[in-house]
Amino acid sequence: MSDIKITSAFWREYQELITKEVLPYQWDVMNDAAEVEMMHEPGGNEELPESSHAIANLEIAAGLKDGRHSGYTFQDTDVYKWLEAAAYSLKYHPDAKLARITERLLDLIAEAQDDDGYLVTFFQIEAPDRKFARLKQSHELYTMGHYIEAAVAYYEVTGNEKALGIAVRMADCIDAHFGSDEDQIAGYDGHPEVELALVRLYEVTHDAKYLKLAKFFIDERGQDRFFDRQMEADGLDRDVIDGMRNFPLSYYQAEKPVREQETADGHAVRLVYLCTGMAKVAHLTQDTELADACRTLWGNIVNKRMYVTGAIGSTNIGEAFTGDYDLPNDTMYGETCASVGLAFFAKEMLELDSKGEYADVLERVLFNSIISGMSLDGTHFFYVNPLQANPGICQHNPNRAHVLSRRADWFGCACCPSNVARMVASIDRYMYTMKENCILMHQFISNEATFDNGVKVSQTSNYPWDGAIQCEIQKEGSRIEKMGIRIPNWTEGHFTVVVDGKQESFVPEDGFVYVPLKEGKTVISLDLDMSVRQWQANPKVPYNFGKVALQRGPMVYCLEQTDHKADLWRYRLTNDSEFTYRFEEQLLNGVGVISGNGERSCAPESEDLYHAYGDIVWEQDDLFFIPYYAWANREDGQMQVWIDHK
Amino acid sequence: MSDIKITSAFWREYQELITKEVLPYQWDVMNDAAEVEMMHEPGGNEELPESSHAIANLEIAAGLKDGRHSGYTFQDTDVYKWLEAAAYSLKYHPDAKLARITERLLDLIAEAQDDDGYLVTFFQIEAPDRKFARLKQSHELYTMGHYIEAAVAYYEVTGNEKALGIAVRMADCIDAHFGSDEDQIAGYDGHPEVELALVRLYEVTHDAKYLKLAKFFIDERGQDRFFDRQMEADGLDRDVIDGMRNFPLSYYQAEKPVREQETADGHAVRLVYLCTGMAKVAHLTQDTELADACRTLWGNIVNKRMYVTGAIGSTNIGEAFTGDYDLPNDTMYGETCASVGLAFFAKEMLELDSKGEYADVLERVLFNSIISGMSLDGTHFFYVNPLQANPGICQHNPNRAHVLSRRADWFGCACCPSNVARMVASIDRYMYTMKENCILMHQFISNEATFDNGVKVSQTSNYPWDGAIQCEIQKEGSRIEKMGIRIPNWTEGHFTVVVDGKQESFVPEDGFVYVPLKEGKTVISLDLDMSVRQWQANPKVPYNFGKVALQRGPMVYCLEQTDHKADLWRYRLTNDSEFTYRFEEQLLNGVGVISGNGERSCAPESEDLYHAYGDIVWEQDDLFFIPYYAWANREDGQMQVWIDHK
Repeated sequence: MSDIKITSAFWREYQELITKEVLPYQWDVMNDAAEVEMMHEPGGNEELPESSHAIANLEIAAGLKDGRHSGYTFQDTDVYKWLEAAAYSLKYHPDAKLARITERLLDLIAEAQDDDGYLVTFFQIEAPDRKFARLKQSHELYTMGHYIEAAVAYYEVTGNEKALGIAVRMADCIDAHFGSDEDQIAGYDGHPEVELALVRLYEVTHDAKYLKLAKFFIDERGQDRFFDRQMEADGLDRDVIDGMRNFPLSYYQAEKPVREQETADGHAVRLVYLCTGMAKVAHLTQDTELADACRTLWGNIVNKRMYVTGAIGSTNIGEAFTGDYDLPNDTMYGETCASVGLAFFAKEMLELDSKGEYADVLERVLFNSIISGMSLDGTHFFYVNPLQANPGICQHNPNRAHVLSRRADWFGCACCPSNVARMVASIDRYMYTMKENCILMHQFISNEATFDNGVKVSQTSNYPWDGAIQCEIQKEGSRIEKMGIRIPNWTEGHFTVVVDGKQESFVPEDGFVYVPLKEGKTVISLDLDMSVRQWQANPKVPYNFGKVALQRGPMVYCLEQTDHKADLWRYRLTNDSEFTYRFEEQLLNGVGVISGNGERSCAPESEDLYHAYGDIVWEQDDLFFIPYYAWANREDGQMQVWIDHK
Repeated sequence: MSDIKITSAFWREYQELITKEVLPYQWDVMNDAAEVEMMHEPGGNEELPESSHAIANLEIAAGLKDGRHSGYTFQDTDVYKWLEAAAYSLKYHPDAKLARITERLLDLIAEAQDDDGYLVTFFQIEAPDRKFARLKQSHELYTMGHYIEAAVAYYEVTGNEKALGIAVRMADCIDAHFGSDEDQIAGYDGHPEVELALVRLYEVTHDAKYLKLAKFFIDERGQDRFFDRQMEADGLDRDVIDGMRNFPLSYYQAEKPVREQETADGHAVRLVYLCTGMAKVAHLTQDTELADACRTLWGNIVNKRMYVTGAIGSTNIGEAFTGDYDLPNDTMYGETCASVGLAFFAKEMLELDSKGEYADVLERVLFNSIISGMSLDGTHFFYVNPLQANPGICQHNPNRAHVLSRRADWFGCACCPSNVARMVASIDRYMYTMKENCILMHQFISNEATFDNGVKVSQTSNYPWDGAIQCEIQKEGSRIEKMGIRIPNWTEGHFTVVVDGKQESFVPEDGFVYVPLKEGKTVISLDLDMSVRQWQANPKVPYNFGKVALQRGPMVYCLEQTDHKADLWRYRLTNDSEFTYRFEEQLLNGVGVISGNGERSCAPESEDLYHAYGDIVWEQDDLFFIPYYAWANREDGQMQVWIDHK
């Protein structure tokens, strides 16, 4: 449908990092060939394994090796998400060695797959009699769904039919076992994902049964006591993941039918994966009720439960949403995977509705809470992406122990590292949304795009550091009549559009200006106001009252202790604060930084824990802001996004 | 040694509440005769029982009833702490009915006691073969220690030898089983308490073996792998309390020998109970090294880890201390029992050193974080005493779910309700500390005291609402030469002392002024400055930066939502704030309240979660403060101790 090549310096660098560092590193880790310190995923309560063992599990399942399964029931998904990232990488950076590795990996996966299409190494190795018997915890459909996603991507990039064939056999296996027939399981997975994967498979195979199966899983969800019935039959105390038994049904997105859910509750990743599948099905089946359910959940997330970085999940307990306006900065979760999932959801909402707010949020997570999940060297990862960190406290306070100030080598549950890899590697898929007679250009990441409807776009800029964006659009006999260009909400309406040299005064409709396209070439110059902006949170958010967060362009900024003289909470901005932006070539691989004048409290240190109030003495001092995504790449210390404002 | 009768209107009312409401209510609850909604103690992870069953456990152990044990291994302690409170009540309010109940209870306890003196109903009923086999979790010495405390109190009040006899047999049983001999257990209880109880028993029996045994437990603590060895022998997975197996040794105050501990870590109640025992032993055995260990731990608590209300324990996870200056207001614990234990510790430190700071902290917990643990009607209790509560958030955020804004009827682990009862009922024991040639008068709770060294004191005031304190001291041929009167640290040095009508300019030494006593009568008028004080926390405490807490006299104040127009975080004080104090007879059983002018932000409500910073518009508004102890006795809502200061 389209061929899009990313040319953005910022994102090209990230994509090359994926190819050159991240994929080789993660491949070594999954092969237990890298020396890594494993870290508990912060919500975890399993014994910590010594290594990933993800490839070994497949080898054992394939009969190539003896041994026991190690890791979670969904350990295979690390491999699949890596494979998906590798597929995308092969597109923008063909590499014979990587291609050989992925082809061999596909051979291994094929060998590990059972004759009936089933492939979840944990159950094949450890509990073959319990396949599909305990879906609340098993992650079997989640696991196979991740392979299906990877295979579709691999097929799309390479045309490899073998990869797709494995996926088709898996999906057929699932289709055979699940459904409304008497001999089928009328149930669903405790972790949504297969829904969106099946729609992806439908999109390449055009076999309607996969779409129907996705819809079945969505509509079945939360309808009855499915989980309980299965657990009773399987044996109540025979958990396959410790500690999950008592999580409420809302954690599993199974408290009520999805069409009746009005608030974003429970496990954040589960919710956004589910919503992505729901939005895909709603779009493809013209199910307006389901689309409305998506809109309701979207609205609750982004208007009441989302951090300014795009992070979601206000608590580590259940890695979950909490309540409206409950956005603590220092006890939060903000899982990298949840931001990735929110990007998925946003992309699908753009298919449903031509509204800029979806793309605004997509941009927010891409430039902030997703890439913050990976270190600049590509080999360290955050699970939790806090808006405030204080290593001195997190070391001692178990309510804050999940908030790391250093990225980890790897995790016992390593869902995030490969998720950020596949997201960054597939960034080209998040640039445009095709409508009836219009293309929505909603991201400003330089690219060269050729659409199969006779439109070519060349977009160039130094975004995110510069707001001047040049687009050359070539149209030859296409049904496309106009280009919808998003005006980001952070511009607060300050932008100019010049079409073929003439400034036009477009008024955005739902966040887009629509530029008519003539036959041949249209040149559009967009200029977005890149002033430093200070946001404040809704006053119903208790944690941020009287504070501001800085944003410039799509980038949210933060303070790091290493650039400051004292504890970060002793700084504040004032009405006299002015901000200077500059690009620092040598810092953090090159970042745009902000200096601002403000004040620092310089009260003499007291030994007393409590003492009589005296005016706090404020001294003029400078604050130094770096983009949020780049924090924790220098010396360990405090970090803060929300800053006191006098 | 002394006979002290409380005459303070404030505390008499509390003591009458104990007698008339609290003791009958708790007796009914323990007899499963009250309709109560049981609530999980907020750190708890056991199945919640339907009722207390505490008396029933004793009846079953005594063979009077069939059935199983229900509740924790230390369920008996609810009864013992109640008995201790009843003993104190019988002193200040003789009551034939209560005396009959306690006598019968003692009969029941005697019947439940094994021939060898052992009495822990859980092990007698459920696991007689595992007595003393798993002390890390069993609470056996803790349980018997609580009986010993109760029995000593009962004996002191009533002279009842039977009560004491049971305690002596218990202590002898412990003495027989524990020690350095080859056939003895060289170990200690996972929950310190027996140490202080054994010293109490020594104080009434003068039998040195109890003091020696207390010292043995203190010195044995943290010395070796005792817990591990016992658990291995008993069967690693045979927990008697679920979920406790993986708590670190610091939780049990067993990570290192107590003399080497430099910071207050682990379970807060365990630490202060242990320190109380340590200070008692240090005092009675002239063990200066042990006394220094007490001073070190005291200093760390009160200078770095104590809330302004006197509450301790910064996290619900492990009901524990965290680190220096880590005093979050909304995720904290501040268990009522920990404040009670801190009062015990303070009292013992006063025996060691004539320093006002111990009595300052004692006053702080008595007037704030202990009595906040009980509702004004005496039938509802807090386990957690937060400095900030927001019911809207606590309902949805599991990191804050332990912070209740309503006191509970009763708890699965009901340690706090009876602890506050015995503390309030024995308040007369916390007024004075006897030194060589001096009496320290360190609390200003009106009383009539007769000391057996020929001194009588009559102290009258309307404290805590009024700072004018009258003392008449009658001395007849006593070794006592002077009266040490504490000058509270909250006066900031503003006080006057008039002796026999003449104003004297004493300079406090370590927080005390020493008034010489002549033969016959000395009249001392003390006037403490009761101005409203604004405290600020050390700037190293991130949570309180830029905020103040109000205190007047010993009372810390708070805001409640019911008295205000908007969310409490939208109010602030300014340098123009002035405070007016008045006593409100009709409010909250009569309280001194503070009105202050301040500001309220009146930004228009926005639907946006984030919006561009605009000056917050502040309107003049009034703030209304009530004493902290009295919060949560009206309609449910937000509460806040620390208030923003412009």
